Amino acid sequence: MSSKQVFLYDTTLRDGTQGEGFQLSGLDKLRIAKRLDEFGIDYIEGGWPGSNPKDIEFFREAKNLKLKHAKLAAFGSTRRADTPVEEDPQVRLLLEAETPVVTIFGKSWELQVTEVLRTTVEENQAMIRDTVAYLAKHDREVIYDAEHFFDGYKDSPAHALATLQAAAEGGAACLVLCDTNGGTLPHEVMEICGAVRKHLPDTPIGIHTHNDCELAVANAVASVKAGSTQIQGTINGYGERTGNCNLTSVIPILQLKMDIPVVPHLEQLRDLSYFVDDVSNNPHFARAAFVGRTAFAHKGGMHVNAVQKLARSYEHIVPGSVGNSQNILVSELSGQSNILIKAEELGIPLEKGSPEAGSILRRVKELENDGYSYEAAGGSLELLIRRELGTYRKPFDLTEYHTSFRQYRDGHPPVCEATVKLSVDGTPELTVAEGHGVVNALDLALRKALLPFYPEISNVSLADYKVRILDGHDATAAKTRVLIVSTDGESTWGTVGVSDNIIEASWLALVDGIDLFLQRKR
Amino acid sequence: MSSKQVFLYDTTLRDGTQGEGFQLSGLDKLRIAKRLDEFGIDYIEGGWPGSNPKDIEFFREAKNLKLKHAKLAAFGSTRRADTPVEEDPQVRLLLEAETPVVTIFGKSWELQVTEVLRTTVEENQAMIRDTVAYLAKHDREVIYDAEHFFDGYKDSPAHALATLQAAAEGGAACLVLCDTNGGTLPHEVMEICGAVRKHLPDTPIGIHTHNDCELAVANAVASVKAGSTQIQGTINGYGERTGNCNLTSVIPILQLKMDIPVVPHLEQLRDLSYFVDDVSNNPHFARAAFVGRTAFAHKGGMHVNAVQKLARSYEHIVPGSVGNSQNILVSELSGQSNILIKAEELGIPLEKGSPEAGSILRRVKELENDGYSYEAAGGSLELLIRRELGTYRKPFDLTEYHTSFRQYRDGHPPVCEATVKLSVDGTPELTVAEGHGVVNALDLALRKALLPFYPEISNVSLADYKVRILDGHDATAAKTRVLIVSTDGESTWGTVGVSDNIIEASWLALVDGIDLFLQRKR
Repeated sequence: MSSKQVFLYDTTLRDGTQGEGFQLSGLDKLRIAKRLDEFGIDYIEGGWPGSNPKDIEFFREAKNLKLKHAKLAAFGSTRRADTPVEEDPQVRLLLEAETPVVTIFGKSWELQVTEVLRTTVEENQAMIRDTVAYLAKHDREVIYDAEHFFDGYKDSPAHALATLQAAAEGGAACLVLCDTNGGTLPHEVMEICGAVRKHLPDTPIGIHTHNDCELAVANAVASVKAGSTQIQGTINGYGERTGNCNLTSVIPILQLKMDIPVVPHLEQLRDLSYFVDDVSNNPHFARAAFVGRTAFAHKGGMHVNAVQKLARSYEHIVPGSVGNSQNILVSELSGQSNILIKAEELGIPLEKGSPEAGSILRRVKELENDGYSYEAAGGSLELLIRRELGTYRKPFDLTEYHTSFRQYRDGHPPVCEATVKLSVDGTPELTVAEGHGVVNALDLALRKALLPFYPEISNVSLADYKVRILDGHDATAAKTRVLIVSTDGESTWGTVGVSDNIIEASWLALVDGIDLFLQRKR
Repeated sequence: MSSKQVFLYDTTLRDGTQGEGFQLSGLDKLRIAKRLDEFGIDYIEGGWPGSNPKDIEFFREAKNLKLKHAKLAAFGSTRRADTPVEEDPQVRLLLEAETPVVTIFGKSWELQVTEVLRTTVEENQAMIRDTVAYLAKHDREVIYDAEHFFDGYKDSPAHALATLQAAAEGGAACLVLCDTNGGTLPHEVMEICGAVRKHLPDTPIGIHTHNDCELAVANAVASVKAGSTQIQGTINGYGERTGNCNLTSVIPILQLKMDIPVVPHLEQLRDLSYFVDDVSNNPHFARAAFVGRTAFAHKGGMHVNAVQKLARSYEHIVPGSVGNSQNILVSELSGQSNILIKAEELGIPLEKGSPEAGSILRRVKELENDGYSYEAAGGSLELLIRRELGTYRKPFDLTEYHTSFRQYRDGHPPVCEATVKLSVDGTPELTVAEGHGVVNALDLALRKALLPFYPEISNVSLADYKVRILDGHDATAAKTRVLIVSTDGESTWGTVGVSDNIIEASWLALVDGIDLFLQRKR
C-alpha cells in the first residue's frame, strides 16, 4: 500500500453526515465502512468521538469489523487554547477510540484564529504542534487537516505556512489542505499546492475540497497535478452545504484518465454508489458522472446512430469499467454478486451459473425493471430467493382488502379505515381497523387478522416507512416504491413494494415484512 | 455588448432537452427564452429547425418574443458531403428560421470523419468552409461548434486545427471548441485552448463542455483562463447523459470570483434556476452550487456558531448576491417580484410595500414553508391573490368526500370509488363515481356534483397530474405535493395541493383547477 501514488481518504461517515438529508444510524455506518473497505478505500474516517456518544459507540463496534485493507480514522480538533494537551478531554477521547489513524484539524486563517478561536497566532501554532506530537507519541498515524487553508493562504501566506510547519514539526504524516468554504478555483489550488510542496518538501500533502462552486472534483485533480498524495472526499459527494469532493468521480478520473491506480475493483464503483444512496434513503442522482443512470444513455437520434457505428464516438470511457452500462435496462441489475452473497448468508449454497441462480437473477432483473430496488430491502430479496428455491410456505391467502378515507370540512378529523379478509389453512378471518392514514389502518387490520394464528407477530412492529415516486420513463405512468423497515426488537429487516397505486405498494411491503418474520420462525 | 469579455450562450432549449427527463413543450420553450433574455443571457439557442417541425414552429413563435438583449440562434449542421450548400434542405431551414445567429457544428476528429461521416478529410473541410461562408453571406452571425474538438486534437492536432481554419476562412464569428464526450481534463483544456489561440489569433474562441467527469464547469473556467470569450451551457446543467456545463455555476464564478461581469442582475440567479426546474417539472437539486436549497445551510454546531460570529468563516460569497439566503426558511420565498408581476397580469395593481402586497407575500411564504411551490402553479397563486384581495367568490361548500379502494386477489381488478357531498348556494348534492385510481374517481365525482350548477365546466379537463414526495426536514413527516394542469381546450393553468395525505393533496389541486376556471368566467 505504501507504494501507492495517491491514497483515498473517505469521510462519508463524518463530513458526509453534515449534509442535509444524509443521516446514518450506527448500523448504517458499520455497513458502509465494511463496504468501503472491500472496495479498497485506504482511510475511513468514522466520526468525531469528542462530539457525540454515538460516534464513541461506533468506534467501539467498528473494532469487530476486521477491516481487510482500510485504516480507520478518528476525527477531532487540536487541543483547546491554554490547556495542556494531556488534560484535554476531547483529545483523550481520540486516543480512546483506538484507531490506527487520528485526523485533527487546526486553524490556518489568521482571521479565524483571532475572531473565532480568539487566541494568539503563537498559541494556535503551539496547539497544532502539541496535539500532533502527543498523538504521534501514542503511535498514531496523525493526519493534519488545515482548515480554511486556501482562504488563509490568500490572506497571509506566511501565517498559513507557519501553521503547516507546526504540524510537520509535531510529526504529522500528511498535511491536508482544506478548501473549507469551497470558494477556491482550480488554478489557485494548483498554485498554492505547488508553493506548499516547495516550502515543506519533506511532508506529504493532501487535499480536502467542497463543492460550493461545483469545482470540488476539479480542485482535487488540480492538487494531484501539483503533488498531493491524499484525496479526501465522500461517496456521491454527500456533505455539508453543496457537499464534499465526490470520490465516485475522482476515483475513475485518477485510475482511467491519469494512470494512477487507486482501487483494485473499479467495476464495483456503481454498486457502491447505489449502496450508499439506498442505505441513507436518498434518491439516486440520475445525471451523476460515471455511475448515474443516464451517464451512458444516448437520447439524440444522431448520437444513437453514431454510437452504434463506433462506441468511442460518444463514450469517453468503457461503461463497464465502472460497473455501468450503455444499455440502461441491462444496467438496472446491480451486481449479481450481491445476490450470491445474500443466498450464502441464508445458508443456501448458490453457485454462479447454476439454474437456480439463473432463475433468481432473471426474476430480480424483471422486478428491478418494474421499479423494485433490493439494496435496502434485503428482506424482500430473501423472500424472493426462498420462493424461487421452493423453501417458501405461504402463511395466509388474501381474499381482499379495502381502504376508506373520509375527509370532512367541518373540523372533524379525517377517518382512515381498512378491512382485511384472508384465510389461514382454510380458516377465514375478517378484520377492520382505523389508523392515522390509510397505510397505518391497513397495517393494523392485517396484524389483527393474523394474530390468532401467529401470536408471535405481536413482537413485530413497523420501524420506518418511506415512499418514493419513480419518474415514468417515456409515456408510462409514474410508479410508487414503498420501503418498510420492520423490527422484532432484536433485528431489523427491509422490505419493498412497487405499484402504480401507493396503497397497493404499501400493502406489498407490509406483507413482506411480516411474511419474512414468519418464514424465519418456521 | 461588444465590450463584454465573456459572452454567455445558453443551449437549455436545444442541448438541454437531449437530457433524459427534461422535456419542454413549445410554450415552455418560449417562457424560458423570455426569462433568459430578461436575465441577460447573450445568445439563446432555440433548437434545430432541421431536426423536427416543433423547432421550426418555435422559431416562428419566437419572433413575437421581442427579446430585449439576447440574440436568438438556430442550430444545425454543416452541409452534407458531396452536396452544394445552396441545395441542402437542412441549411435552407436554418435560414428560414430567420434568426440573427446561426450555429453549425462540424467534425474535428478524423476518426469521426472517416468512420461516422464516411467521407474524406478534404471534403469535410470544404463542408465546414462552404456552410459558414454561405450563412455569413446571408448576413448571419455564424458560430462554429467544433464537435469532438479535444478528442480530435489529441488524435491529430494538425487535422483538428485545419477544420477550425476552414471555419475561420468561411467567416465564422466564433470557433467553439466542444468537449462532446465530456472526457477531457481541465489542464488539457487549458493547454489545447492556448494552442488554438496561438494558431488562430484573429478569431475568437468559445467552449462547450459536458459533465461526464464532473468537470464541465472547471473546463469552462480553464478555457476562459486560456482566452475563450464565449461559454456555452445550460441552466442547472441539464443535457445529454450527465448534462452540459452548468451556467448557473459558471455565471457567479465569472462575475464574483474572476471579476468578469456577465449579467446585470445576478441576484435573480436562484429564481431563474427554480423557474427552469418547475417549468420542466424536475425536482430542485438541493445541493446545487450557489442556488441550491442547502448551498448556504449550516448544520454542524461548530459551523453555525462560527457563522454567527463571522459569516465569512463558512460562506465563500454573500448568499444574497445570487438571490440565495443563509436562512433557509426565509429563502423559500422565491422572489417577491414574481408575485407582483402575476398580479399585474391579472389587472390588479399591486404596489411593492402596500398592505395588500404584504399580506399576499406573507401568505405565500407560509404556504411555501408548508411545501407549496407556485412557479408552475400560477392558477393556485391567482386564487390566493384573489382571496387576499376579496375578489374571490366561493363556488361551493364541501360537506365531505370519501374514497374507497378495494383490492381483490382473485384476478378481479381493483375498484376505486369516490363520493362527494357538497352544496351550492344551499342546494345539496351527493354524487359517486368509479375511476382508474382513487384520484380519477374523485375528479369524476366532483365534476358530476358541480355540473348541474356550472354546465360550463364540461369543457374543462385534466391535462396532467404529477406527484412529488417532499422529504421531511428534521423529524416531520414527508409531505406530498400534487401539481395538476387543467385545460379548457384554449388555455391551460397549473394548480397545486400539499398535504401529508396524497388523496387530500390531490383534492386540493383538483378543486383549485376547477375553481380558477369558475372565478375567471364570472
